[in-house]
Amino acid sequence: MSLASHLDRATVERIVREIVYKQAPATGPAGNGTAPKSSELVVSVSARHVHLTDEDVEILFGKGAKLTVDKPLYQDGFYAAAETVMVVGPRRRMLPTVRVLGPTRPFSQVELAFTDGISLGIDLPVRPSGKISGTPGCVLVGPKGVVELKEGVIRAERHVHMNQVEAKRYGVKNGDRMSLRIESSCTVVFEDLLVRADDTSKLEVHIDTDEGNAADLDHAKKVELLKQ
Amino acid sequence: MSLASHLDRATVERIVREIVYKQAPATGPAGNGTAPKSSELVVSVSARHVHLTDEDVEILFGKGAKLTVDKPLYQDGFYAAAETVMVVGPRRRMLPTVRVLGPTRPFSQVELAFTDGISLGIDLPVRPSGKISGTPGCVLVGPKGVVELKEGVIRAERHVHMNQVEAKRYGVKNGDRMSLRIESSCTVVFEDLLVRADDTSKLEVHIDTDEGNAADLDHAKKVELLKQ
Repeated sequence: MSLASHLDRATVERIVREIVYKQAPATGPAGNGTAPKSSELVVSVSARHVHLTDEDVEILFGKGAKLTVDKPLYQDGFYAAAETVMVVGPRRRMLPTVRVLGPTRPFSQVELAFTDGISLGIDLPVRPSGKISGTPGCVLVGPKGVVELKEGVIRAERHVHMNQVEAKRYGVKNGDRMSLRIESSCTVVFEDLLVRADDTSKLEVHIDTDEGNAADLDHAKKVELLKQ
Repeated sequence: MSLASHLDRATVERIVREIVYKQAPATGPAGNGTAPKSSELVVSVSARHVHLTDEDVEILFGKGAKLTVDKPLYQDGFYAAAETVMVVGPRRRMLPTVRVLGPTRPFSQVELAFTDGISLGIDLPVRPSGKISGTPGCVLVGPKGVVELKEGVIRAERHVHMNQVEAKRYGVKNGDRMSLRIESSCTVVFEDLLVRADDTSKLEVHIDTDEGNAADLDHAKKVELLKQ
C-alpha cells in the first residue's frame, strides 16, 4: 500500500499548503487611476471551503458545538475555522479535508474549484454565493455526524468586495461587472468580475485556485481592476 | 485503509477523464475576421504529459521498446502513447500515471499544470517547449527502469500552432504574441499566447488544465484569437 499512503500524504500536504484564503501580497495599487492611493488592491485565492448553518455545525461537530476561529480573513469578522469536514460526492468519491469558514450562515454551501469538481465527479455550476437554487448536493461528514445537502455545491463566481466610497471612485455599483488583469509570466484578464459593494467591505478580489494557478498569481508583477 | 483506497480510485478516475489532449469541439470561427472561414479555431487542453527520447523509452519500457500509438492528436503525426510513467518529485511525492506523447524527441521533458506542481512540490517555471535549461528535474519510473532527469519539468507556455498562410492572414509571424478570449460563464482573456507558425501545422491553441478550468472551456460559447 505504499502508493496509496504516498497519495494520502501528498493530499494532506497540499491541503496544508493551500490553507484556505491564502493571502496574496498586495502587488500594486488599483489600476485605473480612479481609486484612492490608500486602497491597495488585494487579490485573494479562495481554496475549496464550506459555509455552515448553526444547526449543521451541531450535527457535524456535536450538540452545542460552535466554530473555532483559526485564522482571521482579510474582511473584518470573517475567519477560517479550525474545523474541517469531508465532502462526499456521487459514487463515494470525496475530498477528505475541506475547511469551514465562519461565521455561520442561514444556509450551508460548498465552494469548489473545477479541479475539485472533477475529482469529486460533480459538474459545478458557477454561481454567486447564496444563489444555490437547483445546484448539486453532496454529503458532509464530520466527527460527530453527517449532513446531506440537497443543493449548495457551486463554483463561486469571481467577485470583488469594496465599500461604497471605492465603488463611487471606480464608477461602479453593487451588481456591476469589472475586469481583473493579472500581469505575470502568463498574463490573464478575468472578465465579468461581480462587484459586491456595501458600506463596510475592504477592497479585495476573490478568485479560486484554478484561476490563481492559470494566472500564476503567486508571481504576479501587477494586478489591475478595470471598468468594463 | 478505505480512505486511502478511495483516494487512489479517485485519482485513477480523474486521469481517465483527463485523457491527454482532450479535444474541445471547435466552438466558433477564428475571431478577428481575417482568418479563412475554413480554419475553425480549435482550443485543446493539454493535460500533464511527458516527452521522451528513444533512449529513455528503452530504459523505462525495456530494451528495444518503442512507443505504441493509442490515440492520434489533432496535429498530424503526433499521438498519445499507450505508455505512462510515474513522475516522482522532491520528498518522494509523485504523480502515479502520466501519459507519454509521441513521437520521441531529442530530449525528455515533463509538462505539468501548476496544480500538478503543487501536488508534486515543484515550483514550475513557465517555458516554451524545448527551452528547459535550468529548469527543475525529477525522476521518471517505468515498468522496466528509472530515469533521472536533471532538468525538464516545466509548465508549458500557452501557444497557438498555425501554418504560414494563417499567420499571414492574422498578420503575425512565428514568435509573436496573440490573445485568446474564451467566452463562457466565466470569460477569460489569455494574453501572451506564443505563435508557433510553420509550414504544416493546423490552427490549434494549447492551454493547460488550470487554464481550461479557469475559463470553463468545456462550456465555452465562443473562442477568439486576437492580435495584441
